[in-house]
Amino acid sequence: MVKFAVLGCGRIGSMHALNLARHPRAELAYVYDIVEDAAAATADATGARLAGEVDEVLGSNDVEAVLIASTTDTHLDLLVRAVEAGKAVLCEKPIDLDLAKVDASWQRIKERKPTVMVGFNRRFDASFKALRDRIHFGEIGKLEQVVITSRDPGPPPLAYIESSGGLFRDMTIHDFDMARYLMGDMHAVNAVGGNLVDPAIGRAGDIDSAMVSLVAKSGALCQINNSRRCAYGYDQRIEAFGEKGMLQAGNQRPTTVSFWGAAATEARDPVLNFFIERYTPAYLAEIDHFVDCIEKGVAPLVGYRDGREALRLADAALESIATGRTVRLD
Amino acid sequence: MVKFAVLGCGRIGSMHALNLARHPRAELAYVYDIVEDAAAATADATGARLAGEVDEVLGSNDVEAVLIASTTDTHLDLLVRAVEAGKAVLCEKPIDLDLAKVDASWQRIKERKPTVMVGFNRRFDASFKALRDRIHFGEIGKLEQVVITSRDPGPPPLAYIESSGGLFRDMTIHDFDMARYLMGDMHAVNAVGGNLVDPAIGRAGDIDSAMVSLVAKSGALCQINNSRRCAYGYDQRIEAFGEKGMLQAGNQRPTTVSFWGAAATEARDPVLNFFIERYTPAYLAEIDHFVDCIEKGVAPLVGYRDGREALRLADAALESIATGRTVRLD
Amino acid sequence: MVKFAVLGCGRIGSMHALNLARHPRAELAYVYDIVEDAAAATADATGARLAGEVDEVLGSNDVEAVLIASTTDTHLDLLVRAVEAGKAVLCEKPIDLDLAKVDASWQRIKERKPTVMVGFNRRFDASFKALRDRIHFGEIGKLEQVVITSRDPGPPPLAYIESSGGLFRDMTIHDFDMARYLMGDMHAVNAVGGNLVDPAIGRAGDIDSAMVSLVAKSGALCQINNSRRCAYGYDQRIEAFGEKGMLQAGNQRPTTVSFWGAAATEARDPVLNFFIERYTPAYLAEIDHFVDCIEKGVAPLVGYRDGREALRLADAALESIATGRTVRLD
Amino acid sequence: MVKFAVLGCGRIGSMHALNLARHPRAELAYVYDIVEDAAAATADATGARLAGEVDEVLGSNDVEAVLIASTTDTHLDLLVRAVEAGKAVLCEKPIDLDLAKVDASWQRIKERKPTVMVGFNRRFDASFKALRDRIHFGEIGKLEQVVITSRDPGPPPLAYIESSGGLFRDMTIHDFDMARYLMGDMHAVNAVGGNLVDPAIGRAGDIDSAMVSLVAKSGALCQINNSRRCAYGYDQRIEAFGEKGMLQAGNQRPTTVSFWGAAATEARDPVLNFFIERYTPAYLAEIDHFVDCIEKGVAPLVGYRDGREALRLADAALESIATGRTVRLD
Repeated sequence: MVKFAVLGCGRIGSMHALNLARHPRAELAYVYDIVEDAAAATADATGARLAGEVDEVLGSNDVEAVLIASTTDTHLDLLVRAVEAGKAVLCEKPIDLDLAKVDASWQRIKERKPTVMVGFNRRFDASFKALRDRIHFGEIGKLEQVVITSRDPGPPPLAYIESSGGLFRDMTIHDFDMARYLMGDMHAVNAVGGNLVDPAIGRAGDIDSAMVSLVAKSGALCQINNSRRCAYGYDQRIEAFGEKGMLQAGNQRPTTVSFWGAAATEARDPVLNFFIERYTPAYLAEIDHFVDCIEKGVAPLVGYRDGREALRLADAALESIATGRTVRLD
Repeated sequence: MVKFAVLGCGRIGSMHALNLARHPRAELAYVYDIVEDAAAATADATGARLAGEVDEVLGSNDVEAVLIASTTDTHLDLLVRAVEAGKAVLCEKPIDLDLAKVDASWQRIKERKPTVMVGFNRRFDASFKALRDRIHFGEIGKLEQVVITSRDPGPPPLAYIESSGGLFRDMTIHDFDMARYLMGDMHAVNAVGGNLVDPAIGRAGDIDSAMVSLVAKSGALCQINNSRRCAYGYDQRIEAFGEKGMLQAGNQRPTTVSFWGAAATEARDPVLNFFIERYTPAYLAEIDHFVDCIEKGVAPLVGYRDGREALRLADAALESIATGRTVRLD
Repeated sequence: MVKFAVLGCGRIGSMHALNLARHPRAELAYVYDIVEDAAAATADATGARLAGEVDEVLGSNDVEAVLIASTTDTHLDLLVRAVEAGKAVLCEKPIDLDLAKVDASWQRIKERKPTVMVGFNRRFDASFKALRDRIHFGEIGKLEQVVITSRDPGPPPLAYIESSGGLFRDMTIHDFDMARYLMGDMHAVNAVGGNLVDPAIGRAGDIDSAMVSLVAKSGALCQINNSRRCAYGYDQRIEAFGEKGMLQAGNQRPTTVSFWGAAATEARDPVLNFFIERYTPAYLAEIDHFVDCIEKGVAPLVGYRDGREALRLADAALESIATGRTVRLD
Repeated sequence: MVKFAVLGCGRIGSMHALNLARHPRAELAYVYDIVEDAAAATADATGARLAGEVDEVLGSNDVEAVLIASTTDTHLDLLVRAVEAGKAVLCEKPIDLDLAKVDASWQRIKERKPTVMVGFNRRFDASFKALRDRIHFGEIGKLEQVVITSRDPGPPPLAYIESSGGLFRDMTIHDFDMARYLMGDMHAVNAVGGNLVDPAIGRAGDIDSAMVSLVAKSGALCQINNSRRCAYGYDQRIEAFGEKGMLQAGNQRPTTVSFWGAAATEARDPVLNFFIERYTPAYLAEIDHFVDCIEKGVAPLVGYRDGREALRLADAALESIATGRTVRLD
């Protein structure tokens, strides 16, 4: 049994708390949120203790691992404090919006060889993982091109967008990590974007639609297409092309039913609506893997450096849009 | 160049006439229809001569092959006369509605070893042919079960139904032939049916919906499902199961476009609407094969006996409904 | 919290026991199996008490509901005893192999108005349930035809087959129930079958391949195709045709990945292998529904009569094969 | 009847010649090729006269329309001469590899208001055309993003690559035209590419893999992915996203057959192998449209300016790779 605390009890934190409370090899000791009502509701739902402050959690011997799901601006500080308190950390993405701070923090904690995992949940999706394993097994020969489609069903609240770091650091960051998961480190990035979904997003200084090209150090090429709007649900697909063929991973739906009628045939359900629905099994597998790492003393498959590199790609994409240049990363 | 005459210039006869007129190895010499306007229109469209009577056609040295597409009640008489005039014959299905007459006629012409082909066009559909070839090549091992789905977009005019010989002899006869094409001769038939589409069809003494089970002499089993109505087009599908797997042949559509929206995803076009649209390439391949047979002096892949056996299965299905028994055919 | 006991800790019983042990509204008090090791293993895995005999379970005030998953020959006796002990009962299919006993037992218990549910798990599959709801909502108009494909990945052990009551009572019984779920009560049955998979099954007096036609009292028609072997997994599909179109429910796979290469394109994973994998969420939903029924005092959606009617259809199919007749049920 | 000459009897020229010879409203008067054997073979196959030189064709009153399918370096000169001889012209893509020459030639001929059509055959593909019509009809609301997948089954001979103008001017030019067909004129282009398929292509100074991003003047975004190799055939797909959903146009296969077995399920045929196979009906529809334009005196849907703009996008993509910049087009 690995004893956990969850810091941050919003939508994703409370989901993690419930997953931990039901997990056969985990025990949820504490929950904390700066909004006490949120923490109290999660404590009620899970049977965990309600912590009055972060130090109560970090100072407790009942806590071996901390899951950080608070607002982005608090991630890095909590991560450092938790590591310094000797805890293993699973931190939601992004680690931070400032690459310099991310690097400085690493200098501060690296000697401890901390167990830090970043919440890139898509690596734990059974279909994406199978696609990667099949690439690595050689089914399509040398990997040449990847196309990642990633479209949210609708934009988040404007207040969230304003503090999110923008589309690339908040949303595309998952796709950047997926590209690295499939293709390794990157050599160059270019991006184009626009404000096609909601003018208010543009007024808030962000884009809501983007197309990014990546060149990997291996020479392989990748395209990402993003939108903050998708009428048919949470569109999450990958295509990987190689010398011997292509592997595709498609969308998922609540049922297998299709309708055939005068207006259309083989019409399927809208795809699962958003990350909580689509990645339910992935979030569970992510926790499984983190518990494994703690129990076996091994490094997580997706660590601090992965969080850092995805952020670096987001920054490069922003720079590409600002300068109209393809940004080199080496 | 094989010189042809077409007898019967209705919907299917005029289509055949056009196909023959454009065929690189065929020449359409004559067309004839008891309704002179129909024949004249086809003559106009194809450049063929308009025959005033059947004997003008059968007596002409310019005619080597006769395509019979007149009303069902005239098929057998024309077939016999054409054979006796030394012509090769491609006759639309069914040969006749009366098995005894079919057998008697065969006795009359068999000594001539005539080149007679029956218009079971579906055998020439590229997908169904590929399915059969792959079965015979052993891809699914020993064939165990076949499911044939065959549904017309809508019922024919009542007047047609009244002279059609009924659902089994008019429509299912294609499926009986397909079952024999895939599985060989049959050992037993049972059928259930109903009048679910249009009460007028029931008043005309016919059914419009049927489900038939067949047991082949090989022991393999087959199900056919039929309806005179299908909202999404002409539903024509086959599944063949064997020890090593299944082969499916699906419906065909005018485009590959699919729509993904809030109400449905991956919604495709309705399927091609009816036999003229769906089996256009099959009708051309059917003619090709018949021309080949004449030029090379070989027997057609689908001959008089196939026409006879499909009719026998239709009769057995009718008997099964009338008696509530599974009808043995050996 | 509804307190449960599980009688029978084989493959399906131990699965139910685990589901109950994890269920938020159920508590697993006891497990019992005539093979003590099986019961002990399940007790270990779930924390339930190990009952030494059935009466210990039925006499306990800690038990409100009994889940019967023992061998078929014990179902009916345990069901009656549990009802007479005042317990709610969820009984695996079939209730029994003898329709007369099924009816006699009902006479014995019916005055108690017992809460009895039969384990036709497929009614709780999200896709089949959605298909039925959409039919009932009128999406395809009046229901005219249903095609049920139901093929096991491989035959059970011969010893099981010998005591199973045969293909129709053991395997097709699920499809008979599905037909009734979609179409209501039946008017007539005919069936053909064969021994195509394994000669040993034939020597044991059973068939391993079958095709069944049903006529519902509504006039709608249904075909079922069954095999004890399927190379690509557990083939479980339904098509429902009506005036306005068709609804299909398809197979399910572990991932959405497809491969496109020189030999084949869009190649998907084999389908989920068997009932435990395919119907995991359905078994959970089945328990949910049963717990609901107990908590709210309402009748299960699938009761004693449904178990009886499915058995009656299996008997009729057997009679149809024996007599070569379509068997009338009214 | 529109009287045609075909200049250039290579692979695509001889296909056009056969299409014209069979066309009900066209007559193929002449064929010409600098390689006399090629012209003679096409003359034989079509019954057209063999021209000894271009001027024989351009000077003939029997020729109203010229189809130019010779090598790229001759296109523009022939186009200008044919226009000056008063002929309507259907010219294969690209018009030329030099944008300055393209513009200068237009200055020379524009006063004649010539009927010039450029052979962007994909605009006449039924699926792509339906996709565009449905976008324009408003089915997905305002168009936001387009993804074009376009991969050849294998690279052309090196000698061809050396004179082709490179991937963007030879192959992507079709995709640039498709992007304009769907989205209108472009505002910006960036591209990344690589030599992943065959080192010899790199040595010849070209890339064989590319990913291009386009920003339309409307603000909509487009991605194109290209490869000179595709194991499963000629991969030609489009996705168009808008406010209300997505339209996809997929690949095409020779049959509808799928295989379901132990290793894979729903496995389809490789897709149609290359442009001749895939775009057979599109090439016919292209001719139909051109004949219509001549007969009715209307401008072709895809004219000289479209040929010029696609070339300009190819040049911009090359510049983007050379400079690492997003190239503005306004």
